Amino acid sequence: MRQILIIGAGRSASSLIQYLLNKSVKEQLHLVIADLSLALAEKKTNNHPNATAIALDVFDAKQRKEAIEKSDIVISMLPAHLHIEVARDCVVCKKSLVTASYISDAMQELDAAAKENNLIFMNEIGLDPGVDHMSAMKVIDEVKDRGGKMLLFESFCGGLVAPESDTNLWNYKFTWAPRNVVLAGQGGAAKFIQEGAYKYIPYCNLFRRTEFLEVEDYGRFEAYSNRDSLKYRSVYGLDDVLTLYRGTIRKVGFSKAWNMFVQLGMTDDSYVMENSETMSYRKFVNSFLPYHPTDSVEIKTRLILKIDQDDIMWDKLLELDLFNDKKIVGLKNATPAQILEKILSDKWTLQPHDKDMIVMYHKFGYELNGVKQQIDSKMVCIGDDQTYTAMSKTVGLPVAMATLQILNGKITTPGVQLPISKEVYLPILKELEEYGVVFKEQTMSYFGYKPDAVF
Amino acid sequence: MRQILIIGAGRSASSLIQYLLNKSVKEQLHLVIADLSLALAEKKTNNHPNATAIALDVFDAKQRKEAIEKSDIVISMLPAHLHIEVARDCVVCKKSLVTASYISDAMQELDAAAKENNLIFMNEIGLDPGVDHMSAMKVIDEVKDRGGKMLLFESFCGGLVAPESDTNLWNYKFTWAPRNVVLAGQGGAAKFIQEGAYKYIPYCNLFRRTEFLEVEDYGRFEAYSNRDSLKYRSVYGLDDVLTLYRGTIRKVGFSKAWNMFVQLGMTDDSYVMENSETMSYRKFVNSFLPYHPTDSVEIKTRLILKIDQDDIMWDKLLELDLFNDKKIVGLKNATPAQILEKILSDKWTLQPHDKDMIVMYHKFGYELNGVKQQIDSKMVCIGDDQTYTAMSKTVGLPVAMATLQILNGKITTPGVQLPISKEVYLPILKELEEYGVVFKEQTMSYFGYKPDAVF
Repeated sequence: MRQILIIGAGRSASSLIQYLLNKSVKEQLHLVIADLSLALAEKKTNNHPNATAIALDVFDAKQRKEAIEKSDIVISMLPAHLHIEVARDCVVCKKSLVTASYISDAMQELDAAAKENNLIFMNEIGLDPGVDHMSAMKVIDEVKDRGGKMLLFESFCGGLVAPESDTNLWNYKFTWAPRNVVLAGQGGAAKFIQEGAYKYIPYCNLFRRTEFLEVEDYGRFEAYSNRDSLKYRSVYGLDDVLTLYRGTIRKVGFSKAWNMFVQLGMTDDSYVMENSETMSYRKFVNSFLPYHPTDSVEIKTRLILKIDQDDIMWDKLLELDLFNDKKIVGLKNATPAQILEKILSDKWTLQPHDKDMIVMYHKFGYELNGVKQQIDSKMVCIGDDQTYTAMSKTVGLPVAMATLQILNGKITTPGVQLPISKEVYLPILKELEEYGVVFKEQTMSYFGYKPDAVF
Repeated sequence: MRQILIIGAGRSASSLIQYLLNKSVKEQLHLVIADLSLALAEKKTNNHPNATAIALDVFDAKQRKEAIEKSDIVISMLPAHLHIEVARDCVVCKKSLVTASYISDAMQELDAAAKENNLIFMNEIGLDPGVDHMSAMKVIDEVKDRGGKMLLFESFCGGLVAPESDTNLWNYKFTWAPRNVVLAGQGGAAKFIQEGAYKYIPYCNLFRRTEFLEVEDYGRFEAYSNRDSLKYRSVYGLDDVLTLYRGTIRKVGFSKAWNMFVQLGMTDDSYVMENSETMSYRKFVNSFLPYHPTDSVEIKTRLILKIDQDDIMWDKLLELDLFNDKKIVGLKNATPAQILEKILSDKWTLQPHDKDMIVMYHKFGYELNGVKQQIDSKMVCIGDDQTYTAMSKTVGLPVAMATLQILNGKITTPGVQLPISKEVYLPILKELEEYGVVFKEQTMSYFGYKPDAVF
């Protein structure tokens, strides 16, 4: 039996564990599922004979190293900043490692040591980052192999609620860390390239500069720009590309409505509000509005946001019960962003039978034999339930597949890596299709960068 | 002869030096004017027999201490962060010190040492902070002495261009550090109190939430909120006040126009723009606009900012030559804020015969004998020329007056101080009137907080 140590048994580990357990007999695998909570780890074993649960405090160096020592390969599903100690132990114990997180500087520094020991430290092999890298590089490599020159790459991804569970006016529920949704886009201008020119969008305009996307059978979406559109320019070999843009997908209308919170200042996480604990939702709203002796909070909100009588924006605010003077925030020393997260969580938390949905959309523009062409590649994945969510599948399955491929000697290139080589992405993308993660590619004539038009 | 050491002979020292030189014979003063630039220091002596210029590198501890040792009192007109070494020497050499800067934590820590040695370290005795403290505390103390209870305090100040030199559509020129104007309001939400409720304005809304002010003979002004409205709540003894607001004065229309820069992202100082050195003004603007194959930068700007054909906002942009594709930024690795400052400086730099203007406006609401009343106190000061500017007068004269009062034993309370006691503000406010710095007070019935109305 080959032993796989999985550290961290949280939400995103469900599909990953399920996949490996299903393969465990045929592939002779034994899973050691380690979590700070033994109960959680035990639950995730699903009473499978090929799985053992252990309690593991990742800050306990001795315990951590012992567990790694005994395994043949390690998967870390810990929060990103906790991988590094695991990785260092993996160097010492000579074990390969798989994570779904961005490569940190500290992780990158282990590259030489990993190569020296012929170890594979595969990172960024979840959804985003992960499936996006693989599905993008597949098309980019194909274009280049055919002698084409890349002109444009736009890539969009969003975690949304599935159409059958889409029951509110915002067409949105929290399917992942709500805090990240509230803070999205903050901390600096979004930067990207359009037709050879650098472009910058400040936070206050970010949710008004969206693009539209059409996905067959799922309708129209919109995307706002990520801050880091240029991050993978060199990694993807796109240094000369004219347009490079990455965005986050929402249903149409979300961003315009979200911008109301931005404009009022409700997404600010930089200061603590006075008396936040005893504040009503209504008082929270009023904190961002001028004083008036007689005008209501409602009319002041309408005025400052210029919301007409019949504007759906208004209904979106009402749906959140934002003007309720009985509902109390109940958070001590909270920032506006924390309070907003609380208010939204009342309404946007997934209900027991709700399903989530992942949408990914790439556009590849290129010139081949003097003709400009474009390939659009789209993927939609819907969760099975609240355990095997679309997020858990798209994050966990590639991690699990990569782990098995490494164990089976199919992925062999050592070092600190991300999944941008054929050796990695070809078999994994193929296998993902069996699990419903399918990219539909369409070739068309070059459409270029047209933010306000939908192909 | 009593020797006054003045460290820093920059712009704001002109009126201060002039005042002290004029008094030097009668008061038996000798000024030692110290600056890194001996030429500048010499120029400021105006060849007066009672003044000596010396070259002083404030980072040269020995030289600095020698100069302080020889003096009877020290004035530091250095940039704020450089006062502290001077102040520490003043403790050692047992000399009193006057500055126009905010009391830093490091300065505050010298309070006990100053008191022990019976030294007066008077700070925040320029314009703002300074004249604002004094003129506000005079009325607040009067109200309280009469048995009144303070309900409201609003305080506004602005450095502007004098009406006779007001020649552009923005009604604004740089009369002080341009960089501070470009960065104004950044770094967190503005916080204040209106009628008992805490209010917060995010940066993206700051310039749209202005108040109007009317000053006889000078017309209508507007003010946007400062970040620090509550800073002096306790210092002024206003812990129970219902409304506390501090703002920056501009001519009406400035803020709405300035907001265009904010919305586009041009005031951002947090990142460096690609190719800033060779970028034209037009390209700079286009960096903040979406790509379009045929639409002009002008039409895209109009569209994103929703500027109608006949809107004066448009003329304000044209006046700045913002769409010029021949004018080159010429700054290496510059932030948007630095580039905007450059563009504005082309048009907003004071011309040789231009004069500046300081406007200050306080509103005091209070209840006395069961009746609510209000006092409005207003001051306008116009510069004589580009040396004896309104800024130089209002900053420098109170510093000079305080120095002389300390030297003459009229101000006696030791310690690290700001000018909020009668001992300080009464004689200085009175003397300032001789120099044209006159507060006109008007008593009226209580008007309260009404942002959109002018009394």
